[in-house]
Amino acid sequence: MKQIPRDAQPLRNVLFIMCDQLRADYLSCYGHPKLHTPHIDGLAKRGVRFDRAYVQGAVCGASRMSTYTGRYVSSHGAMWNFVPLSVGQMTLGDHVRSQGVRCALVGKTHVEADTEGARRLGMDVTQGAGMLAMQGGFEPYARDDGIWPPGFKVSGNAYCDWLRERGYVSDNPWHDFANSGRGSGGEVLSGWQMRWAGAPAAIKEAHSETPYTTDRAIDFMREAGDQPWVLHLSYIKPHWPYVAPAPYHAMYGPQDVIPAARSEAEREQAHPVIEGFRRDTASQSFSRDEVRDTVIPTYMGLVKQVDDQLGRLFAFMEEQGLDKDTLIIFTSDHGDYLGDHWLGEKELFHEPIVRVPLILCDPRAQADAGRGGVSGELVECIDIVPTILEALGIEPPTQWLEGQSLLPMLRAPGTAKGKQFVVCENSYAFRDAVRLPLGQPVERCHMTMLCDKRWKFVHVEDLPPMLFDLETDPLELNDLGRDPRFAAVREQMLERMFGWLRERRRFPTMDPKAIAAWNRREVEAGILIGAW
Amino acid sequence: MKQIPRDAQPLRNVLFIMCDQLRADYLSCYGHPKLHTPHIDGLAKRGVRFDRAYVQGAVCGASRMSTYTGRYVSSHGAMWNFVPLSVGQMTLGDHVRSQGVRCALVGKTHVEADTEGARRLGMDVTQGAGMLAMQGGFEPYARDDGIWPPGFKVSGNAYCDWLRERGYVSDNPWHDFANSGRGSGGEVLSGWQMRWAGAPAAIKEAHSETPYTTDRAIDFMREAGDQPWVLHLSYIKPHWPYVAPAPYHAMYGPQDVIPAARSEAEREQAHPVIEGFRRDTASQSFSRDEVRDTVIPTYMGLVKQVDDQLGRLFAFMEEQGLDKDTLIIFTSDHGDYLGDHWLGEKELFHEPIVRVPLILCDPRAQADAGRGGVSGELVECIDIVPTILEALGIEPPTQWLEGQSLLPMLRAPGTAKGKQFVVCENSYAFRDAVRLPLGQPVERCHMTMLCDKRWKFVHVEDLPPMLFDLETDPLELNDLGRDPRFAAVREQMLERMFGWLRERRRFPTMDPKAIAAWNRREVEAGILIGAW
Repeated sequence: MKQIPRDAQPLRNVLFIMCDQLRADYLSCYGHPKLHTPHIDGLAKRGVRFDRAYVQGAVCGASRMSTYTGRYVSSHGAMWNFVPLSVGQMTLGDHVRSQGVRCALVGKTHVEADTEGARRLGMDVTQGAGMLAMQGGFEPYARDDGIWPPGFKVSGNAYCDWLRERGYVSDNPWHDFANSGRGSGGEVLSGWQMRWAGAPAAIKEAHSETPYTTDRAIDFMREAGDQPWVLHLSYIKPHWPYVAPAPYHAMYGPQDVIPAARSEAEREQAHPVIEGFRRDTASQSFSRDEVRDTVIPTYMGLVKQVDDQLGRLFAFMEEQGLDKDTLIIFTSDHGDYLGDHWLGEKELFHEPIVRVPLILCDPRAQADAGRGGVSGELVECIDIVPTILEALGIEPPTQWLEGQSLLPMLRAPGTAKGKQFVVCENSYAFRDAVRLPLGQPVERCHMTMLCDKRWKFVHVEDLPPMLFDLETDPLELNDLGRDPRFAAVREQMLERMFGWLRERRRFPTMDPKAIAAWNRREVEAGILIGAW
Repeated sequence: MKQIPRDAQPLRNVLFIMCDQLRADYLSCYGHPKLHTPHIDGLAKRGVRFDRAYVQGAVCGASRMSTYTGRYVSSHGAMWNFVPLSVGQMTLGDHVRSQGVRCALVGKTHVEADTEGARRLGMDVTQGAGMLAMQGGFEPYARDDGIWPPGFKVSGNAYCDWLRERGYVSDNPWHDFANSGRGSGGEVLSGWQMRWAGAPAAIKEAHSETPYTTDRAIDFMREAGDQPWVLHLSYIKPHWPYVAPAPYHAMYGPQDVIPAARSEAEREQAHPVIEGFRRDTASQSFSRDEVRDTVIPTYMGLVKQVDDQLGRLFAFMEEQGLDKDTLIIFTSDHGDYLGDHWLGEKELFHEPIVRVPLILCDPRAQADAGRGGVSGELVECIDIVPTILEALGIEPPTQWLEGQSLLPMLRAPGTAKGKQFVVCENSYAFRDAVRLPLGQPVERCHMTMLCDKRWKFVHVEDLPPMLFDLETDPLELNDLGRDPRFAAVREQMLERMFGWLRERRRFPTMDPKAIAAWNRREVEAGILIGAW
């Protein structure tokens, strides 16, 4: 392994780890009293932990497309799951690959290919640049988006094939073995029904998704050779189905479940959109203590398994000397209500959903001052791409990137500033239970959260806003969105949102330096407009 | 020629004519007292003339990209001339070609190819879909963007080659012959210097740009055969260089020049951005009567030549029976200050720039009721693509299109409504004379005009707005942007702008019908989230 000096030189590699549906507060370094995650905590000790990091979308797809493009949801337009990422958008992979850095994926991205755009442009999507564009710019070293319902016949999926080779034979071994238990008569206890969350997965732990995914990351690092790389290691867990293999299925019990953040009052004064989401099956289920007591221990077990696997991976990297020249990033794509606010799943803007873990570890000496530090500054997941580019010594294309590098905050954690406010968006256009009773057309279901250090404001098209005072009401139990005493706060947040929206207007296909040099170029070209 | 019934059946063809830099008020049907344009007026008599049609960008490139995509400038991102049109944007050509309709170009588009996007996607831009994407979706039957400065060696341009074949031999016959006169010693009097605007072009009229372009349109129609088509006939004139061939160079004189719309007062109370543009060479020149008296008669001659050529084209179409099954659209990409408001060129939002001629003639019986009518409704050039699609019987992809078809206004001109307000945008990022004294970074030079039937409001980032009352001040001599009496009007316009910006957020890569059907699809797929 080539020796890289531990100084301000660019780093060789980036390991960009993401969990799916992991709440920040389900890690011990973020304060969970029962769930100990020593390996992730260790990363925080070697690096900086961001205590107020926010995602830009409140569902997987939109959030990830923001994180991968470094652009807000309104800017990339992939507003929800399964909305294709336009071929016109640039991603992390595009920015690093052009500089000789490999950008590979192990795990999930939720990138929906813009096949219509590809057809229109006559692209060859079976190989090379066209194929990469369909993968959101990631080389699919071991892509696995998982999440197949029972009865779905899975073919051409490497993990399912690998499972079958190991004796887990069915049309859908992902569902039938890795994400389901077994009843006393050998019947499949589907992970899609949460009542079975307490049963162990019908699979050896080593064959379950999280170790499998970790193995592929290790394979990649072994095979990578001398070319610098960014590896996106993207675990599907602790995303549902909430099923864990033994021993993780039984590590925690109802006594370890922290109480739900909810009140009777918030049910009565509910915003109509929240009310809509409360009608959802997941919300109905998670409002019951029986469900929480069954599911949350398993959720915790799945997080614990991720932590153990990261321990294995970090040990491997240390053994290989990769820890010396690799920036490590750990984050999530959004959280999980788990019954907080009488809600299940995600899609709204309470802290359990939009606040995610974000830990950065830069091995260079220049980051020594910040090690073990905690930043309370506001940062966003769109800051990750600029951070990766700076770490690799790549000039950021500012016409595309809407975030800012976090490296200054690693070097000087006390002084470097974060954002004035963070933004998260979602649309309930895809949710009939919310949309239809409100009579909203799909085009008018947009919600935008602006959150500063104190106030969280959610603009809802054609409906009242939501407003929470995080200082006096950190659990967000009291929606001040219609309280006349806070009209001035709402007005100020609206003003900021207007300014933020105006800033989204960019010249993405033109370098600002070229724009600034335009007049000189025009004169040099002999173009004399309006001369007498 | 196949007989098409003259009823509510879709039309076969669309002739979409555009002039460059043509003000609405320089046509007799729009009220010019001296410049008679009988052929364009005739089209208006056979169709409907829109008296308040507005472009979406205040320079060629941005305006045209809006007209061709049916999307606002902020939505397509090609904010100024020479900013590439992202490969992610869909254009008129994409929408009609997929339905079997040819979409060809004769003349100018100002489309800047997104070569960087094409490289990133591995596209073959030498042929087929890739080539078309680089042409903004137009088949370049006879593309000619013209506008080459003296000294520029033009190669590979069909018009220049054609000129050379006819004895106009030079590196740049476009400039040296078609757009310049000759001095008494045979020296080139460059059209790039407006002092020579009165001299005839050093070219036979039949060889000048406008007849050449018309010939190519006729060639296209002759060759088109049975396939339905949209032909974009896009004249470069009356855009500068202001040089006309004989006899058009001498048809009008200073006595035909209408007075400039300007006042001493507006010079004193100037908005800093307007002040910046007034420092521009073109503004300095056009503020002098000598310049106006020399240039405007030639500008009028160039318009007159377009009108004569359209007369020739319309006669050809009638002779061929093409008038029976072709929707004809006539418009422009923006106007020309010509000294109004002490300004030259364009880039700001006074009526001479943003209000353009728009005439539609639908030969079908269903449009008979409106023939010869004038609509005072507010309409936008982004309405042209939806209009073309409706005329051809093509379902509009509403996730892409931000305009609305004008055909209902042809059928029932008295009752069908236009827009509540129209929008036009520009950025002065490329203009050092404006930007540098204001100390603005290129990212913060955006200007947005909102204009309703009475008020024209221009939001200027970080600077005071502009406001004109078109009812009491139709010449826009009195900027009320800083007048405290009109704070409420400005507030209301800002509110509308905020709403308009929010509406720009779309799912462009997903059909709204698919979104609305999502829940059903999810249930059918067996996806049961959060079930107990």
